[in-house]
Amino acid sequence: MKTIAYQGMEGSFSHLTAMQEFGSHHKFLGQETFRDVFLSLEKGHAEYAVLPIENSLVGSIYENYDFLNQYDTCMISEHFTRIEHCLLALPDGNIKQIKKVLSHPKALEQCLRFFQDHPWVQPIIHTDTAAAAAEIKQRKDPEYAAIASAGAGRMYDLLVLERGIEDDPQNYTRFVTLTKKSGDCLGGNKCSLIAMLSHIPGTLADFLALFAEQGINLTKIESRPLRGIPFEYIFYIDIEFTGKSKDQAEQMLFCISRRAKKLKILGFYKAGSL
Amino acid sequence: MKTIAYQGMEGSFSHLTAMQEFGSHHKFLGQETFRDVFLSLEKGHAEYAVLPIENSLVGSIYENYDFLNQYDTCMISEHFTRIEHCLLALPDGNIKQIKKVLSHPKALEQCLRFFQDHPWVQPIIHTDTAAAAAEIKQRKDPEYAAIASAGAGRMYDLLVLERGIEDDPQNYTRFVTLTKKSGDCLGGNKCSLIAMLSHIPGTLADFLALFAEQGINLTKIESRPLRGIPFEYIFYIDIEFTGKSKDQAEQMLFCISRRAKKLKILGFYKAGSL
Repeated sequence: MKTIAYQGMEGSFSHLTAMQEFGSHHKFLGQETFRDVFLSLEKGHAEYAVLPIENSLVGSIYENYDFLNQYDTCMISEHFTRIEHCLLALPDGNIKQIKKVLSHPKALEQCLRFFQDHPWVQPIIHTDTAAAAAEIKQRKDPEYAAIASAGAGRMYDLLVLERGIEDDPQNYTRFVTLTKKSGDCLGGNKCSLIAMLSHIPGTLADFLALFAEQGINLTKIESRPLRGIPFEYIFYIDIEFTGKSKDQAEQMLFCISRRAKKLKILGFYKAGSL
Repeated sequence: MKTIAYQGMEGSFSHLTAMQEFGSHHKFLGQETFRDVFLSLEKGHAEYAVLPIENSLVGSIYENYDFLNQYDTCMISEHFTRIEHCLLALPDGNIKQIKKVLSHPKALEQCLRFFQDHPWVQPIIHTDTAAAAAEIKQRKDPEYAAIASAGAGRMYDLLVLERGIEDDPQNYTRFVTLTKKSGDCLGGNKCSLIAMLSHIPGTLADFLALFAEQGINLTKIESRPLRGIPFEYIFYIDIEFTGKSKDQAEQMLFCISRRAKKLKILGFYKAGSL
């Protein structure tokens, strides 16, 4: 039995994704913050962690990229989770009765159309989608509902009153699995990197040409100015190197790393699918 | 007198930024959604629009990039606004009395430490930071406060109880000014682009090398998968071309555009400063 850390409560998208990745017969350790998840790996309280890293609507979750840069972990898999928001009520609830809906601010923001269509319903901010679901169960007030996943509904015995109430159904979160145990970094066809490059015209083009020369495909690149250091940028880069072994890829990345001010390999893993 | 559209209410960061850009003696047209702002340019209800495009903590505002891709507008300036959240109360208010704090979900999320330090205060979601300030003024209940800018506080005669309560002070939003009038696209040393490239290894490196060959500096690059079209990416790119005229830059971009599946120039403008 493994111990897997995640951020949030039982029934959160992170928890549901972790259970999909590992199966439900493990120990899942819900943590209050993303930093706590990294610390639980660091201190050995968990062997694995499952963390959101980007969302198709919101973009990269900078906070977790900062922690990936700061802590030494190894990324061993990725998983795309469809974020389907459901209106969850008490088992005998109906939409006409609902006056207040609790959820995480991001989830409320992603369901603006639902609130426009139901003007008698007031959105109320909560710490977590799953915590909102838990509160509905405990509160037993038919005027209250939550926005959370169908999985959270099952977990807290709630009725799915409406399914898929998010404004944009193309809402996916990319989760990654992390471990401290480097022996688990077995390989795959994908690799995530953080690179720091000098801000001189051509540096990035030259750097990317090194990947191209090896026939390696970029699947993500994002520049981010470094705080407090003007004219220095870090780049979040994902590459796919189908047809090469992990050793070949590592050797190539070693050569490439000499052209960067800093290159941190976050891990090798198998590319996930939507 | 010019008419300038923005999203939100009087006293919102967008409104305050628009007043900084143009001076306060113009007509400012608050719109409910970002799309409404684009439509007000499209229909000629406003000559200019001021819109947020990225934030140092949250990243690019994809929604507005989508609209920039969809509508024909011209970006003529950029402006970095420090997002300083203040706790605003009635003129005789004090922090001990406050029980409920209204604000936009993103603002509440950016002030989590304040709520941890003041556990008796309940965060309540509102449509807009400035609308929350307006409601405090109207409600006249000493138990209520809002999180909004100091400018919104002045606008609604509220007391700044605490200043800079955001968790991370490195919180800047980059706003751009748009117009339909192409005659206003006068030039500058910076240009924003949306490029669509084939997803073949080396395409991006080759594409960026074209900029490098001309000594042009990239200040932003971000890949985004195209919805519904696997293996096609669009890139949000900003370049700086100090020492070249707008005509030279345009000619160069015309050459570069032949190497992209699509290249949309969003506008030429003078680089803003933090």
